[in-house]
Amino acid sequence: MTTGDLSRLSINQETLKQWSLPELAEGCTAAGIGAVGLWRAPVQEYGTERAAKLMRDHGLTVTSLCRGGFLTAPDRTGRERALADNRTAIDEAATLGTDTLVLVSGGLPPGDKDLVGARERIADALAVLGPYARERGVRLAIEPLHPMFAADRCVVSTLGQALDLAERFPAAEVGVVVDTYHLWWDDLAPAQIVRAGAGGRIHAFQVADWITPLPAGVLLGRGQLGDGSIDLRGFREQVDATGFGGPVEVEIFNEELWARDGAEALAEVVERYRRHVL
Amino acid sequence: MTTGDLSRLSINQETLKQWSLPELAEGCTAAGIGAVGLWRAPVQEYGTERAAKLMRDHGLTVTSLCRGGFLTAPDRTGRERALADNRTAIDEAATLGTDTLVLVSGGLPPGDKDLVGARERIADALAVLGPYARERGVRLAIEPLHPMFAADRCVVSTLGQALDLAERFPAAEVGVVVDTYHLWWDDLAPAQIVRAGAGGRIHAFQVADWITPLPAGVLLGRGQLGDGSIDLRGFREQVDATGFGGPVEVEIFNEELWARDGAEALAEVVERYRRHVL
Repeated sequence: MTTGDLSRLSINQETLKQWSLPELAEGCTAAGIGAVGLWRAPVQEYGTERAAKLMRDHGLTVTSLCRGGFLTAPDRTGRERALADNRTAIDEAATLGTDTLVLVSGGLPPGDKDLVGARERIADALAVLGPYARERGVRLAIEPLHPMFAADRCVVSTLGQALDLAERFPAAEVGVVVDTYHLWWDDLAPAQIVRAGAGGRIHAFQVADWITPLPAGVLLGRGQLGDGSIDLRGFREQVDATGFGGPVEVEIFNEELWARDGAEALAEVVERYRRHVL
Repeated sequence: MTTGDLSRLSINQETLKQWSLPELAEGCTAAGIGAVGLWRAPVQEYGTERAAKLMRDHGLTVTSLCRGGFLTAPDRTGRERALADNRTAIDEAATLGTDTLVLVSGGLPPGDKDLVGARERIADALAVLGPYARERGVRLAIEPLHPMFAADRCVVSTLGQALDLAERFPAAEVGVVVDTYHLWWDDLAPAQIVRAGAGGRIHAFQVADWITPLPAGVLLGRGQLGDGSIDLRGFREQVDATGFGGPVEVEIFNEELWARDGAEALAEVVERYRRHVL
């Protein structure tokens, strides 16, 4: 990898939420970036086929689609609804030509305190969805979310847990997302990255920095690369040391970044990527 | 343990921050509670000897003193200042007659991204402070804080990490705090509780519930017992199954609780303790 090489850089569209899909496609192309990560809601709004064509026309690779998941409903109706929605998400990923559907597994149902049971229901759903995804050339990527999201978003909090789940299924069906924001604090993460790489389970690698204080609700508190506490380059080197040579997707949820001119924000992301990740 | 038994209940004074020390002593005694956890700042303000006498006069046991720690400074001056402050904290604990000084170990220094190095500096400090504490009948209790505090408060994020640190020293010098709020999400916590109990390392057991959404800064978002996602009784049973029979200290940082009449808030804590912890 030469200094300044952007060949592996992918921009997750939530990093530049101020941009429409056409603006994203044009802006990334103009900046010399060849890949993006997309989200279902804006893609659906624009039209999935149409979004796929837009990306193809700009020569952009879609590195991931966010997000399926929310698989912890305890009742039959909730479970069936989640499976149907995830099948749709898999179809959308296939239409977009990406091989990776990111899963945010789901939190605890209201009033429920049973983390073990919730995690088991995720496994039950993966058993159904994995083959469906594989037939369409899509892999399910379990994203462990920071433990501060365990109650309301994702009961899978560490890379070790995510791998415990994923390894029940073939690597061609279920893998994991390694996201620096969610995993940086965990002293067991380095060994789990080795485990994930050895098993061919790293389906996506995402980067964002950790800054404080966290805002209310904590969702939109991610930091621009280099602004926080995470050794981003060290993480990237650990992931690469396993033989991973895939995209490095920048996914930053940050209202200040969204308030800025898109091209200016992207230029900063690129500069920070070069300085702190490459 | 009979239903409704309050013999193990201890009220951490931060749960009832609206109360002065005399109000706390009188209020707890009136409610049939025999133990409290104290914090250094209000104790210093009142006078440590005087606070010790106040508690003795009310027949109250001081189950812990919060907090020592902040041991991650990289420079000599910062390190020496921290050691001096912790010696003072140990002296204060001894004066109050508690055998437990809770340690919040400290976050990353500004601009620093080296978690491993920060954790090693904590071990260096414990080697100095452990014998000093032991000579005064005080044990240092490392409190793993929720990973959302890893950058700015405590680089020790799991019970496993806390035990890795504590076990370098005699159990009479260094142990751990098991706090439901910080540990509830961790699938490895049950095994680590067994490890901690077997080694005689559980120096304090604290309870609070996990509620969402988290407020800005996340520090004051702890939930009243029973309002959140944590199986508090299950946790207490796991801790007790190791042979721990010590105090159950309620430590809830919550601005809504502080805005209420102290006696009314305490009555609710007691009722919730009976319903969700005992």
